[in-house]
Amino acid sequence: MDFGNAVPPNKILSPLKHLAEIGESDVGRMVKLRVWLQRCRVVQQGSESFKVAFVELREERDWTILGIVDETAPAAGVSINTVSKGVIRWVRNLPLESFMVVEGAIIKRASGEPVIENHCLITDYAIHIVRMYCEAPAANKLTLSLDNASSNALSGQMIEDTRSPTLQFIRYVGPSRSLATHFDNMVLHKRAPVTQAIADIRMMTRRIFCEYLDDRVFTQFEAPCLVPSVWGTDARSKVFSLRYFGETAFLATTAQLYKQLEIAGGRKKVYCIGPAFRADRANMDKYLTEFTSLDVETEIENDYTEVMLLLESLLLHIFQQLKKRCQHQINLIAGVYPSSELLLPDHGKEVRLTFPEARELLREHASPDLMLCDTTFINAAQAALLGAVVREKYATDFFTVHKFPSSDRPFFVMEDSDNPELSNSFTFYLRGQDVGSGGQHIHIPGVLERRIQNSSYPNMSTPGIGKYVDIFSSGGVSPHGGGTFGLDRLVAWYLGLPTVQLAACYPRTKMRLTP
Amino acid sequence: MDFGNAVPPNKILSPLKHLAEIGESDVGRMVKLRVWLQRCRVVQQGSESFKVAFVELREERDWTILGIVDETAPAAGVSINTVSKGVIRWVRNLPLESFMVVEGAIIKRASGEPVIENHCLITDYAIHIVRMYCEAPAANKLTLSLDNASSNALSGQMIEDTRSPTLQFIRYVGPSRSLATHFDNMVLHKRAPVTQAIADIRMMTRRIFCEYLDDRVFTQFEAPCLVPSVWGTDARSKVFSLRYFGETAFLATTAQLYKQLEIAGGRKKVYCIGPAFRADRANMDKYLTEFTSLDVETEIENDYTEVMLLLESLLLHIFQQLKKRCQHQINLIAGVYPSSELLLPDHGKEVRLTFPEARELLREHASPDLMLCDTTFINAAQAALLGAVVREKYATDFFTVHKFPSSDRPFFVMEDSDNPELSNSFTFYLRGQDVGSGGQHIHIPGVLERRIQNSSYPNMSTPGIGKYVDIFSSGGVSPHGGGTFGLDRLVAWYLGLPTVQLAACYPRTKMRLTP
Repeated sequence: MDFGNAVPPNKILSPLKHLAEIGESDVGRMVKLRVWLQRCRVVQQGSESFKVAFVELREERDWTILGIVDETAPAAGVSINTVSKGVIRWVRNLPLESFMVVEGAIIKRASGEPVIENHCLITDYAIHIVRMYCEAPAANKLTLSLDNASSNALSGQMIEDTRSPTLQFIRYVGPSRSLATHFDNMVLHKRAPVTQAIADIRMMTRRIFCEYLDDRVFTQFEAPCLVPSVWGTDARSKVFSLRYFGETAFLATTAQLYKQLEIAGGRKKVYCIGPAFRADRANMDKYLTEFTSLDVETEIENDYTEVMLLLESLLLHIFQQLKKRCQHQINLIAGVYPSSELLLPDHGKEVRLTFPEARELLREHASPDLMLCDTTFINAAQAALLGAVVREKYATDFFTVHKFPSSDRPFFVMEDSDNPELSNSFTFYLRGQDVGSGGQHIHIPGVLERRIQNSSYPNMSTPGIGKYVDIFSSGGVSPHGGGTFGLDRLVAWYLGLPTVQLAACYPRTKMRLTP
Repeated sequence: MDFGNAVPPNKILSPLKHLAEIGESDVGRMVKLRVWLQRCRVVQQGSESFKVAFVELREERDWTILGIVDETAPAAGVSINTVSKGVIRWVRNLPLESFMVVEGAIIKRASGEPVIENHCLITDYAIHIVRMYCEAPAANKLTLSLDNASSNALSGQMIEDTRSPTLQFIRYVGPSRSLATHFDNMVLHKRAPVTQAIADIRMMTRRIFCEYLDDRVFTQFEAPCLVPSVWGTDARSKVFSLRYFGETAFLATTAQLYKQLEIAGGRKKVYCIGPAFRADRANMDKYLTEFTSLDVETEIENDYTEVMLLLESLLLHIFQQLKKRCQHQINLIAGVYPSSELLLPDHGKEVRLTFPEARELLREHASPDLMLCDTTFINAAQAALLGAVVREKYATDFFTVHKFPSSDRPFFVMEDSDNPELSNSFTFYLRGQDVGSGGQHIHIPGVLERRIQNSSYPNMSTPGIGKYVDIFSSGGVSPHGGGTFGLDRLVAWYLGLPTVQLAACYPRTKMRLTP
């Protein structure tokens, strides 16, 4: 057997094999693997002093195979060199998470054979190793082991969240040393199968979102991050600014202006996916300072319910497809971050409440204290309760509330023509939390100006407002509407994760700008 | 006939039809269209004083159909109301680019019928209008007409570019009033079919990029825009910074660190698409301050040529597929922004020159002046000449140069083990301009530290360098490499556009932060 701390050139001629591809036809064949050494156990074999090393070799995700470095039993039908004595000591001393190139014969794990403990995803096969090289050694002592990286990043620091009855998970309080340890050791954190599973769900969510809209002839576009001004109901205090060649630029908090500009610019249906920014010091479990925004805007033929139903069906399609395509990942994640089973409505049984109906339902179940809060919107505690009530009553964790009070919605949202106190708007809730909202957006400049005049903020002298109104006063613009989803929340609440930080690729909060 | 400045509810019951769908089976049918009024001509019909209005109605892209508002001849087989007298004056006075809802019968344009001038994309059918409403009027006087928006934004201000023999287009000089007029009137600029065609090519380029990599089991991820530090050969002076909760954050100039972190974090092959930023005051035809970066990183099994050949084949696949899927758009764009035919190599005839070979080829053709410039890289004028020479010699506008001098490449690029003066790196050229580059990236911390110590910038005390080196010193990291393409350049040089600003969705330069 050949082994060592460098890969000799041209020494391994067997074909490279990925663990996901190994099957019956590989039994008895020599293959090359490029893998991480995940675990190593040395066992005394038989009465003599021969030793055998059992190694767990990991490729991407949770793909793992048992490797055998064995002096006594060459694999049947394959010419195997005898193991040189030094190899056992060498293997045992290799730092875990070193990157290895190995060559060996794939063997079948027969049910009759002496049982070898096997924690690997591949249970039917193992590899009898004949060559083994360390291509890149890990540190002798990892600050975060793979086992720790694979465990719940918030365990040990949690309390029951009584405010959120639909969320079965528990919430951490105070500074999360454990979460910080994960993110400070990003290499190992990312190697944990649970982290890769969450990332897979995130990317699949993006993909299904695009597929659904592409199928319906939506056109993708890109909204800029650097913008000249910011307006909105509450954005002003939560915006990052920077010097831009003598001017001030802002980091976009929303693609709103740009998706409307696309519609004004002659598109029927558009979407975009990209970063958005909020200089938010608030709840770091719900708000990231940099997040991925999924935005949709479409021409409206008759009324705003077209958009609401489109986006509702888009979200349900995403949830159903995730379950179908990523069941393995969902199970793996639930093993680390337990959550209640996600209940979705059958087709035709979707729950849509008007804002007055939702308030009524809340009033029936809430304590008077909870209802003291502002009556023009649904706050987080109310949303959580509403989620629990709807789950109990309709057996779904997903529902829609529409016709929010006009005063609660931004100035660009169209009022209900029958009752201007209400607006053509909607918010989607998942497990009692907001995952996205939208509405019909004003396309007539006069209506927009009147709405701005009647709103407390912004007003017509707010920087950027003039240019925004101008969009609608050059070419005539079709009636339109759309919605926005935060990808981080969508993933986090779908999986029942305790914090959006775990759903992000590289979380950014007021406390974290690294790595 | 019914017409007016608002759409009466429930008045139009015919089904909504998109222009792209209209065919033989629609002849004689009543349909609803939602379109922009693009042009209107009123013609005296016959000997009597009846008038007919011919309107060009536009939907998305360049889809247009002729509409007929006619008092004298109801369409055969369809019950048509007689035209009320006032409609002709009303139609004639409608501002162009108003958004209209019309109802009418699709008629066949027979070859025998009296010829009606028709500039529309749909030549075989027209619509005989019976109801016509203005849903959103345009301004009475547009600051940019659709015709002007559809014309070359740089005409009238151009000179031949003698430095760039492969580029058949001509370059503008000085402040571009015309380009600025386009971007200042973004609604009309975007409505121009040429603008939508360029946007289609841009989005198709993104899509083909993803498809190609998805097919090869690459995993997508998202790199952050907000980063804690910046290092690189020349990035330091060209970076945007901002206050971030008492710290300084930077806008990422590259996803380099993060794509390597993905590989270190246990992925085999990754890609990402997202914004990157450069505070660049230089050539606004080549550099945007915010641009879309396409990034690829993959494990290397044997050597860097694996990555080079992968990315070469990816680019050629994009170019070939664009030609196949977007020929209509390419022709439309070439009608406004003429360019020479793009020559691509046949499979097996790809041109790959080492840096020393490229210099030799240049030396044979260049004036001594041109060769006086630094000999460790290929500057813009040299690249243009090299493009012309390669086109002449090998009949291709696309080629690769590899093995650039180590001193020209960033500190994270692996040196050639046989000759450390050269590096395992490459750049791709299209029409004599750089469209992307890459190489093998160092995966061993000791090698990386030595390379940093031997480079003039950065050094080990440069902020962020320590954390970068740390990536490779916790878990062992597989050998890897990758490359980066600028989407804006890829689109601009593929189409032979005179400036990357025309390829962007919302161009950002030192002169432009709006809309």
